[in-house]
Amino acid sequence: MKRTDVNELGEFGLIDHLVKGFKNHNKSTLKSIGDDAAIIKAGAGSVAISTDMLIEGIHFDLSYCPLKHLGYKSVIVNLSDIYAMNMLPSQITFSMALSNRFSVEALEEIYAGVKKACEIYKVDLVGGDTTSIPKGLALSVSALGYTEKLKDIVYRNGAKIGDVICVTGDLGAAYLGLQLLEREKQLFLNDNSIKPDFSGNQYVIERQLKPEARKDAIEYFRKSNLRPTAMIDVSDGLSSDLMHICKQSGVGAYLEESKIPLNAESKQLALEFNMDPVTCALSGGEDYELLFTVAPEDLDKIRFMPGAYIIGEITPEEDGVKLHTTGGNIHPLKAQGWNHF
Amino acid sequence: MKRTDVNELGEFGLIDHLVKGFKNHNKSTLKSIGDDAAIIKAGAGSVAISTDMLIEGIHFDLSYCPLKHLGYKSVIVNLSDIYAMNMLPSQITFSMALSNRFSVEALEEIYAGVKKACEIYKVDLVGGDTTSIPKGLALSVSALGYTEKLKDIVYRNGAKIGDVICVTGDLGAAYLGLQLLEREKQLFLNDNSIKPDFSGNQYVIERQLKPEARKDAIEYFRKSNLRPTAMIDVSDGLSSDLMHICKQSGVGAYLEESKIPLNAESKQLALEFNMDPVTCALSGGEDYELLFTVAPEDLDKIRFMPGAYIIGEITPEEDGVKLHTTGGNIHPLKAQGWNHF
Repeated sequence: MKRTDVNELGEFGLIDHLVKGFKNHNKSTLKSIGDDAAIIKAGAGSVAISTDMLIEGIHFDLSYCPLKHLGYKSVIVNLSDIYAMNMLPSQITFSMALSNRFSVEALEEIYAGVKKACEIYKVDLVGGDTTSIPKGLALSVSALGYTEKLKDIVYRNGAKIGDVICVTGDLGAAYLGLQLLEREKQLFLNDNSIKPDFSGNQYVIERQLKPEARKDAIEYFRKSNLRPTAMIDVSDGLSSDLMHICKQSGVGAYLEESKIPLNAESKQLALEFNMDPVTCALSGGEDYELLFTVAPEDLDKIRFMPGAYIIGEITPEEDGVKLHTTGGNIHPLKAQGWNHF
Repeated sequence: MKRTDVNELGEFGLIDHLVKGFKNHNKSTLKSIGDDAAIIKAGAGSVAISTDMLIEGIHFDLSYCPLKHLGYKSVIVNLSDIYAMNMLPSQITFSMALSNRFSVEALEEIYAGVKKACEIYKVDLVGGDTTSIPKGLALSVSALGYTEKLKDIVYRNGAKIGDVICVTGDLGAAYLGLQLLEREKQLFLNDNSIKPDFSGNQYVIERQLKPEARKDAIEYFRKSNLRPTAMIDVSDGLSSDLMHICKQSGVGAYLEESKIPLNAESKQLALEFNMDPVTCALSGGEDYELLFTVAPEDLDKIRFMPGAYIIGEITPEEDGVKLHTTGGNIHPLKAQGWNHF
């Protein structure tokens, strides 16, 4: 029998391949696979649902990720997907498969993080599943949101030529936080007497271990009566996520390198690691900022949006997706999201 | 630090313990943890969501479970939860964490099973997550349904004294199928030349590997204008699942041993295994039949329901949950669902 390795297709190629041939049977299925969340018609309104698995040894390392932070982050990454639809999440389900090395006290820590996220983001834990697994820890979280206003929902596919590309905050820090945590882990493994030193790097560590979702951005959009034309959350990296918008909208784009927001701590740390901080922003991922496009006439509303940055513009599809470098060069962007296989 | 083993609490005790202290923030959360599915208000109607994880080495054994059946079953167990709310599921999400031992062809098999279930039950695959895991295979599936008629939703907590207890089909077969598969696996492991012999046992094997959900029962309820007072799907075993209804409804119950439906093949196989077939029905689980209660005045509607059996009656809480044996004895029932930890 033929054996094709999953790496030959990559994550998105694999999903496309596997769901090919699935047909929808219900008119209530408004948006299926391919956006941050699925959209399901429910009476006069719509429900959004997103789901993510977090696997020990792949998405988190308990040697430096506190259980409470893990619980918190597992909720945040799902809420972020609902915000990316320009909707507000209101419920989550939380499922957990755990090996017998986890005590009740350890689980209490995870749930303390889940509870904290629920309280801060005002969402309710409504269900889930708890079971065992031979080895490790696997979390599966879903988030649900509801809106009466179907027209408010923002997909990845609405970007138009001339739209302005914006992002809600600085990028690359979560990735650099991970590099730092991994470096300190290796140092510690080589010499147990070395105590990890994170002084001056609290920001990047927190961006990695305890990210936040940009609920405030959605609230700002509502308050200022602004509807982005397309939106996605930055989970795979600015480059890969912008390409999702471009591909689904049938457009091109350029990013101004000099406009990509970078935190000072990130820049400093990137230097230490001999990395380009812009590359960290483009390919890092896990920042959970919102990347969105707005029509040119809404530009003024963005100028007054706290923490928002204008970083580029949507162009015709044939122009491709490009980076205008600070040095005056133009490079095609590559999708360099993480390949977990 | 104190270390409490999760086994000290059991699955349900553990969940109760962990979610203690969670408060709801949204009026749209109509039913939270504690039923087959959560119910969320969506405009004038309501959405039900259920979720289950299926873990290799815990819930399935790929040495005898075909991948296509696994995909099929992973959908069915979730649809069953939505039917148990007296609702019709319309969408699912399907998430999968897989180790690198799985080829694209293997995943195609799993998805072929998912697709088959979607086609037969007319539900749409709308989302999910695909990622890797260091070892094994973990599936996480959610099902969603919507109804405009909130009054049609049936919870576990509506059973009243005098209500009749019914079940949609025979019980214990899935458990016996598992025993048979495990026995043949051991024989094969001891002697590779032994070919598993399942002749005459197709029914129990299919009940274990490729169960169906009782959509037809919900359709019958609608057609006959019958609303059960309480309902649950038999996933943990008749005994444990009846106790969920009794506990949440604040009632007792008795089951007539002689009325518990058993398939002829199950009875024969139970004898072979030196087991009591009624015990298999009470404690086996994974039958995915619907266990429900109806008001006495609706009894006639049940008599004409294809495949339905009347097996007992709801009694006052102080009478407990009991089994009236064929021999004329009365035994208290014990919840003996599977403890996966």
